Amino acid sequence: MFADQLAEHVRQRGNPVLVGLDPRASMLPAGLLQGGAAAPPARQAEAYRRFCFGVIDVVGPLVPAVKPQMAFFEQLGPAGMIVLAEVVRHAQSRGMLVILDGKRNDIGTTASAYAEGLLGRESPWGADAATVSPYLGADSLDPFVEVAQARGAGIFVLVKTSNPGGGMLQDVVADGRTVYRRVAEYVERLAERTAGGSGYGLVGGVVGATYPEQLAELREAMPHAWFLVPGFGSQGGTAHDVAAAFDPRGGGAIVNNSRGIIFAHARAPYAERFGAARWQEAIEAATRDMIDELRGQTPAGRLTGG
Amino acid sequence: MFADQLAEHVRQRGNPVLVGLDPRASMLPAGLLQGGAAAPPARQAEAYRRFCFGVIDVVGPLVPAVKPQMAFFEQLGPAGMIVLAEVVRHAQSRGMLVILDGKRNDIGTTASAYAEGLLGRESPWGADAATVSPYLGADSLDPFVEVAQARGAGIFVLVKTSNPGGGMLQDVVADGRTVYRRVAEYVERLAERTAGGSGYGLVGGVVGATYPEQLAELREAMPHAWFLVPGFGSQGGTAHDVAAAFDPRGGGAIVNNSRGIIFAHARAPYAERFGAARWQEAIEAATRDMIDELRGQTPAGRLTGG
Repeated sequence: MFADQLAEHVRQRGNPVLVGLDPRASMLPAGLLQGGAAAPPARQAEAYRRFCFGVIDVVGPLVPAVKPQMAFFEQLGPAGMIVLAEVVRHAQSRGMLVILDGKRNDIGTTASAYAEGLLGRESPWGADAATVSPYLGADSLDPFVEVAQARGAGIFVLVKTSNPGGGMLQDVVADGRTVYRRVAEYVERLAERTAGGSGYGLVGGVVGATYPEQLAELREAMPHAWFLVPGFGSQGGTAHDVAAAFDPRGGGAIVNNSRGIIFAHARAPYAERFGAARWQEAIEAATRDMIDELRGQTPAGRLTGG
Repeated sequence: MFADQLAEHVRQRGNPVLVGLDPRASMLPAGLLQGGAAAPPARQAEAYRRFCFGVIDVVGPLVPAVKPQMAFFEQLGPAGMIVLAEVVRHAQSRGMLVILDGKRNDIGTTASAYAEGLLGRESPWGADAATVSPYLGADSLDPFVEVAQARGAGIFVLVKTSNPGGGMLQDVVADGRTVYRRVAEYVERLAERTAGGSGYGLVGGVVGATYPEQLAELREAMPHAWFLVPGFGSQGGTAHDVAAAFDPRGGGAIVNNSRGIIFAHARAPYAERFGAARWQEAIEAATRDMIDELRGQTPAGRLTGG
């Protein structure tokens, strides 16, 4: 099942880096898309396919998983969604796990419909796991858990997000408990109930790198939950900040980087070293640097069987 | 812009009924899909297309808008999403407004990507409005508002949902204010700032029919917001329950019914009168009955200028 597979992939690759696939027409390496964002959606989608396949071919041997952001594919309409499904399969054909980041949420049989469409390699989208938003409460999460369990897949519930405005609802305190803490406690119950050999369950939490104190609080509150940690790099989170996401064995968390890796060709120091034409080499260098950074400064350096 | 168009559509049709398009393989009228849910996704999607087109052809002249539930199309993978885009266009060709119910949510440029893909007839999905989930806070809603404003489209933010578990986060009380009330106050600020000639803004709220007291509280708290009211019929909400959603002029709210209308062929009293073969007549009768029910028992009977 997903939690154990993720532990095994992290162990095999020796790092907890999650590469976010956030293609954008305006940021693709020159030559991949004539006309940029003004090109017809079908041509943009084809460029996204070539770009994402190219990213996957580079990072596939290096990191355990990728996280396609559904929004950027959905932005192109049906043409983008066709490519999204191909991207999922391509990553899996390269031995990676795929977490679809769609933050879906609904109730009852509607939530089940999302879960059945997204979760498990036998499903139409074929994801190994997906992100889910919790505003609708327990009966919006349970259908995802049920389908995930039947298919050996996983979900990551938004707990404490990395954006400045996240506190508007998440940080509301009642009876001494924040809203995000309530979500965390529900996630932990589901995670504990579904824990596998790795010690982790199929329900994990999304916890931003930009709030290190909450990261530590939540690591303690959710000992059976995998953490998906966004906000590293472009949103300001550092390797030092994410250290608290890991358990004492150096496991239990994956750290996402999207733009910082896939668009490395456009940022220092990779832009000068490689330039747009050698964008795949820039991606490889940026990925290796992030792996080293996490190894040097966090318990991830102690990664063994985590 | 959307809020004024909706007021005009409600006035023209003389009722506030929103028909939810929630196709499901197992519930389609016999003959539409050989093999039911076991059929390949592409054949299921084709059956969804014929079914939804058939629903739209019946309800198009009767009600102001339809609400396709994205989950049921997404469940079929890319084949379902191709049909979803066709369903949106078909409803608009019949003179209806289309609210895409996807409860999307993300932050910053990712939220913008969803908004740009979904909102406005010139966008790939072409929706007149879309539903949005607020867990990520203000900076997850603002990008939707920005795109909606640029395109004359609308959004409906989940405020108080119709499901029993919704209270887990939405009803948390801090400093005397519920979480849903905080969301409502933010929605009202955005609605007031964008109000058009109808008195309503392009940001509305989703407020369940199953909590009549909160409906009244929220009507008062959000005088400039259109209400999208789910939970009527199959979830237990009655015409009496939804009365509080309307403003003193009988406007400002649309009441959704999905299964109760589109699968009328399978429920009393329509099953006996029409049967599966005459499913379109069953839909027409159920739609007319809901219109009458709302006219008889709520301020919607006084509908004039919306």
